Amino acid sequence: MDFLKTTDQDFAAKFSALVNNRRESRVDVSVAVQEIIANVKVRGDEAIREYTSCFDNHSPTSFGLSQKAITYYAQQCSADITTALEFAAERITAFHQKQVPQNFVYTDSVGVNLSLNWVPLSTVGIYVPGGRASYPSSVLMNALPAKIAGVRRIIMTVPTPNGKINPAVLAAAQVAGITEIYCIGGAQAIAALAYGTASIAPVDKIIGPGNAYVTEAKRQVHGTVGIDNIAGPSEILVVADDKNNPEWIAWDLLSQAEHDPCAQSILITDSIDFAQTVIDSIAGILPCLSTRKVADASWKEHGAVIVVDNLDASIPLVNQLAPEHLELCVDDPHQLAQHIRCAGSIFLGRYTPEAIGDYVGGPNHVLPTARSARFSSGLSIYDFMKRITYLECGKQSLQKIGKAAVILAEAEGLPAHARSISTRLQ
Amino acid sequence: MDFLKTTDQDFAAKFSALVNNRRESRVDVSVAVQEIIANVKVRGDEAIREYTSCFDNHSPTSFGLSQKAITYYAQQCSADITTALEFAAERITAFHQKQVPQNFVYTDSVGVNLSLNWVPLSTVGIYVPGGRASYPSSVLMNALPAKIAGVRRIIMTVPTPNGKINPAVLAAAQVAGITEIYCIGGAQAIAALAYGTASIAPVDKIIGPGNAYVTEAKRQVHGTVGIDNIAGPSEILVVADDKNNPEWIAWDLLSQAEHDPCAQSILITDSIDFAQTVIDSIAGILPCLSTRKVADASWKEHGAVIVVDNLDASIPLVNQLAPEHLELCVDDPHQLAQHIRCAGSIFLGRYTPEAIGDYVGGPNHVLPTARSARFSSGLSIYDFMKRITYLECGKQSLQKIGKAAVILAEAEGLPAHARSISTRLQ
Repeated sequence: MDFLKTTDQDFAAKFSALVNNRRESRVDVSVAVQEIIANVKVRGDEAIREYTSCFDNHSPTSFGLSQKAITYYAQQCSADITTALEFAAERITAFHQKQVPQNFVYTDSVGVNLSLNWVPLSTVGIYVPGGRASYPSSVLMNALPAKIAGVRRIIMTVPTPNGKINPAVLAAAQVAGITEIYCIGGAQAIAALAYGTASIAPVDKIIGPGNAYVTEAKRQVHGTVGIDNIAGPSEILVVADDKNNPEWIAWDLLSQAEHDPCAQSILITDSIDFAQTVIDSIAGILPCLSTRKVADASWKEHGAVIVVDNLDASIPLVNQLAPEHLELCVDDPHQLAQHIRCAGSIFLGRYTPEAIGDYVGGPNHVLPTARSARFSSGLSIYDFMKRITYLECGKQSLQKIGKAAVILAEAEGLPAHARSISTRLQ
Repeated sequence: MDFLKTTDQDFAAKFSALVNNRRESRVDVSVAVQEIIANVKVRGDEAIREYTSCFDNHSPTSFGLSQKAITYYAQQCSADITTALEFAAERITAFHQKQVPQNFVYTDSVGVNLSLNWVPLSTVGIYVPGGRASYPSSVLMNALPAKIAGVRRIIMTVPTPNGKINPAVLAAAQVAGITEIYCIGGAQAIAALAYGTASIAPVDKIIGPGNAYVTEAKRQVHGTVGIDNIAGPSEILVVADDKNNPEWIAWDLLSQAEHDPCAQSILITDSIDFAQTVIDSIAGILPCLSTRKVADASWKEHGAVIVVDNLDASIPLVNQLAPEHLELCVDDPHQLAQHIRCAGSIFLGRYTPEAIGDYVGGPNHVLPTARSARFSSGLSIYDFMKRITYLECGKQSLQKIGKAAVILAEAEGLPAHARSISTRLQ
């Protein structure tokens, strides 16, 4: 854990190191993934079957789950979890419905008709990881915006090592209305989604997190299909004054740290005493935490505490760090928030722990990491829509705008461009 | 040129081959580009200077152009071109201003405050190619949406082989209000934009087309900065009945073909006679066209004519081809257009040649190629904005939604998540 004070002589250098520290441990699996994709492209289901048997120790007769099977597994999920998923889905739906964009159409002063329509993608594939990171909440966060956008076919792949299915993931899929589910994973699942096989029709876009193989496979099929942002290890930045309960802040920092040894939790505060109390709190909590191994590694290796003179001084630091999650645990969080231009999602006030947003807040929990909040955004219904623009000139209106276009086409050395217009002006 | 009829026995196979034909000739320059980027990262301006001297045969004392120099070169551009650029800028601005999205804020029934703000990126770099593809119109199409989005710093790099500057590009930059211009290009320019050097501050996102080195460099710096969609060779699909002037349609098809030997022009018509007349027209025009070498290569290699029984039968074909540009040269183009779900930009009626949209229509001419209109869109102000979401619970409202989140956190095996909420519920 780094402890920085803005009054330190070497603060600028230390902060810059913190900003530029890349936490991702990239393993180069590109050749292995290339081979898997090429094999699936040529041999389809047969290749998928071999990889699934080999990597997941699982040999189903069919990869797809029947409606009966989906319902059966979903019902294995405890009622209180299913109810919580339904509650979450309702809130996520409400927030994402507010995002529905407006088409527009107008005729300009010279009589040209112009318009723009938002159109949903036709078909989307959601990759859900197996094992520990197989989160039912992520199924909702990925599927519901696609559904609200109007995507007609939303399918899901999830690896089932040893044939073991996570009932909560199936319950989430059922809550989200996903009816097409394949029990496959890894680069082979990504290849199937991108190119299709005899039993799996291809999709237009693949979303959802995965391991190094899945991520590399998404990179390789990008262009053939769309993909979402590549997610790095999770991050939280908490800006807190000394009026907070230090234990609450300790839990917030640990909630991010427990995700991944590469996760990062940073506290910015204007009180050195408060900083120390939070650090002590974390030390006190860690030994009793069941996820302590991961949380401890993350906090030790990537955690940071920054003491500033006053909380306004945190603003440029936050914008440079461009955190995935930002908590503003202060009296007037709105005053600070209006100056923040780079953050994925902001949690305002002392009663909005980031974890509430992971599940039931409403905004999406799929957010830009590794400073990409400088140029990208959390998942939204826009990720499942595209825009088509329309232009319509008539004989008269083309006369009014055509000449300028002819001049520019000629200037660019494109005579057929020029003639396609001028021939209609005669 | 392929000639297909839907009544052909082997139509499905031939059409599928057309859909899946990848026209991009990818040269693997990844290692060379890696080296250039690494060199610029470490040696900054010195490396840029060496590459510029070596690749562009140009050794300026400074890469940046002064205001005086920008004005000087812009004034070398002829007045009618500058006036046409101003006219185009006005129309492009009007269309993109209609895209300005709405923030939203609401308090839900349990008292939770939720909101979403659209925030412009801080700084964007536009790459403008040198040589033949150095299009002033593209400067406008890239810069104006960024300006309307509210990006404060928009910079441009343009290689100037042998120190030669394209006045029309500088005039376009001036019309678009770009005041920071560097005369560098290639992978070294992309590296400078992504990582910065002593003389060039880094940007948050890089946009604009380039050669294989530029494209690969953008791929490699993606993540450190945002990038736009990778553009492939241009495409046009014209759906036309036999009431069109065949020569007009011939020019439209050639206007795309003259861009690049890998460009693609496709005609779909319900009249075999009309198809033949257009083909003859093209053959007649080509010998006199100054861009005939490129246009002829593209038409011969990638051109296609598809004869359908009736124009409604073109709809599924169009949606599968997902063309960058679609012209609907028919009596009622709106009737057809409402069924098109995959196309970058649609040009309606007999008086809207695609080229009008390249310059002065208003909608953007940076559009998805290679069937990516299935999942992506043309350039817009949204490409220069990001969304921040906000969540604010109070003591009471957290009580109302917290329990469900605790249940889900526990189900996902994340105890610190659960405790960060439950500790605030007591």
